Amino acid sequence: MIHNDFYTQENHGPYEFYSLGNFTLEEGGTIPDCQLAYRTLGNLNERKDNVIVIPTWYSGTSKDLEAYIGEDRALNPEKYFIIIINQIGNGLSSSPHNSPEPISMSNFPHVRISDDVRAQHQMVIEKYGISEIALVVGGSMGAQQTYEWAVRYPDMVKRAAPIAGTAKNTDHDFLFTQTLMDAITSDPGFNEGKYTSSTEVAGGLQRHADIWSVMGLSTEFYKQEKWRLFGVESLEEFTKGFLQPLFQAMDPNALLTMAWKWQRGDVSRLTNGDLKKALGGVKAKVFVMPINEDMFFPPRDCEEEQKMIPNSELRMINSICGHFGLFGAEGPDFHDQVDKHLHDLLNAFV
Amino acid sequence: MIHNDFYTQENHGPYEFYSLGNFTLEEGGTIPDCQLAYRTLGNLNERKDNVIVIPTWYSGTSKDLEAYIGEDRALNPEKYFIIIINQIGNGLSSSPHNSPEPISMSNFPHVRISDDVRAQHQMVIEKYGISEIALVVGGSMGAQQTYEWAVRYPDMVKRAAPIAGTAKNTDHDFLFTQTLMDAITSDPGFNEGKYTSSTEVAGGLQRHADIWSVMGLSTEFYKQEKWRLFGVESLEEFTKGFLQPLFQAMDPNALLTMAWKWQRGDVSRLTNGDLKKALGGVKAKVFVMPINEDMFFPPRDCEEEQKMIPNSELRMINSICGHFGLFGAEGPDFHDQVDKHLHDLLNAFV
Repeated sequence: MIHNDFYTQENHGPYEFYSLGNFTLEEGGTIPDCQLAYRTLGNLNERKDNVIVIPTWYSGTSKDLEAYIGEDRALNPEKYFIIIINQIGNGLSSSPHNSPEPISMSNFPHVRISDDVRAQHQMVIEKYGISEIALVVGGSMGAQQTYEWAVRYPDMVKRAAPIAGTAKNTDHDFLFTQTLMDAITSDPGFNEGKYTSSTEVAGGLQRHADIWSVMGLSTEFYKQEKWRLFGVESLEEFTKGFLQPLFQAMDPNALLTMAWKWQRGDVSRLTNGDLKKALGGVKAKVFVMPINEDMFFPPRDCEEEQKMIPNSELRMINSICGHFGLFGAEGPDFHDQVDKHLHDLLNAFV
Repeated sequence: MIHNDFYTQENHGPYEFYSLGNFTLEEGGTIPDCQLAYRTLGNLNERKDNVIVIPTWYSGTSKDLEAYIGEDRALNPEKYFIIIINQIGNGLSSSPHNSPEPISMSNFPHVRISDDVRAQHQMVIEKYGISEIALVVGGSMGAQQTYEWAVRYPDMVKRAAPIAGTAKNTDHDFLFTQTLMDAITSDPGFNEGKYTSSTEVAGGLQRHADIWSVMGLSTEFYKQEKWRLFGVESLEEFTKGFLQPLFQAMDPNALLTMAWKWQRGDVSRLTNGDLKKALGGVKAKVFVMPINEDMFFPPRDCEEEQKMIPNSELRMINSICGHFGLFGAEGPDFHDQVDKHLHDLLNAFV
């Protein structure tokens, strides 16, 4: 275990913990006393049918999702009981840097998207006695978890909205994620995951951030100098003043745990590799919501999957920020689009 | 100087050398006895008006362009005198690894696209007495040089066909290129450019190749397993068996010299930063030819520039291989498109 100032209540709270106990992973490892960090907003109604579950994206935490929630939004805590659950390995939930031996740091076991969803499922049942979820919605790796929820628990999930993500990760995405991982592991300071502070991996984390600067936004984002949306005054300030420090504050092993998981997201593992069968078995009403400028979860990949889901629609989100549109830097220009679709979805009869 | 088995007549020939003598660079450095490696096909006619100049792309050599030329092609050596000129720093022309002190290896000076074009201009005038060029055509960095030719020598260049490249490099492209460079320079074996063999930089060159695998092709290329076009049987064979060894054979300082140059390609340096004025002064008939799936020279960037060129047309090339479509792995499906456009251009009255 090492200390990391980034993963604090101050930066990412408020959040609470739920212990799953001894949690066995699909790859064979175990997380003893597995902790899920989560945040709830709103109240569970008597019929326990007003639940919205939101899983987190790569490098993100529950804090990042708060901007999607509000009394004037589709994700309205006055109406819904909203549970944001931090994915395993994200630095808040059980993760390499905050776990004791025998799973500390580089000994942290491989976790799959399916493990996260099983863990979340266990938590909502054990802690709240929930048997029906009105909506699962998430972006990027949150979309991967959303798909897994809909395929794995078809009778429980009434609606699902995967934003900017896929049910089965593509080869191109696998390669992209690998470049992110290799940027970190190739830093001599990484020391096979046995660094004593993430500052020792600053170079690798910087190159990791720089690859994000290429793939995470869009060519047009830079052409139109839309980094201004992020409150900066220059391109250099965007890369060196925002993206690099953002990722450099994170734990390298946490990023690697998530990246490994991202690479292998695939709901068709539940159906012997038959993606059509997996998605064909979804009972939820699903809005597949790609971002038009996304460079690695492009709309056509999302649309191909949407067509395999019986009760589904393609709902495009337009964002010049590409995948990082998820950050919501465009404010209402982004959130109003998401809201419109989620509003339609939540009001759809299922 | 170090030896590198990759840059041989066997691999990249036949090619000859032309010495420019002492060549002064825009950034202030000098290449004593600057050598341009070049290949010619066909014969110069008496009027000396059948000249086609083809500059090379990043990491490429004159050998790569031969597939574009043939008696059944628009670039027909029975009709035209075709000169393929290797850019400075590409490993065949004067480059870090083949230059003696004081400019050997990491001491090799910064070279600009404009230096290349001035060098090529000097060569065709001195060696052949050419005052008119029927066509300059090149892909990627070859397109950058093509634009520089058309802007710098408007009375000399009658036609120009920049394929998959821009007149002014974009911020996004700069960031992308930087990730390629950092992949190399961050390798401890790079040793600030003072390695004794490129094999010492194998890790960095591998990561450089891996970033290419993400940006150089297209998401659809992988989805449709189009790596088969490259004669391989699996994704792994494409990355580990083709792309990685390809770049690992190259000289790291050569790649860095070209990358630095690529980042700063900008014809508006000739007009105090006024791109409209620079492109507005082009007298050549220009076909701007983006590749539809190109991830970093996207069609919209190319089209924006095309609209600034008086006598120009946008001619799209379709290739699922994205930027690497330039390799021509699709065979006639690619080359026939290029040929059609170049045929129209060469037959256009100017």
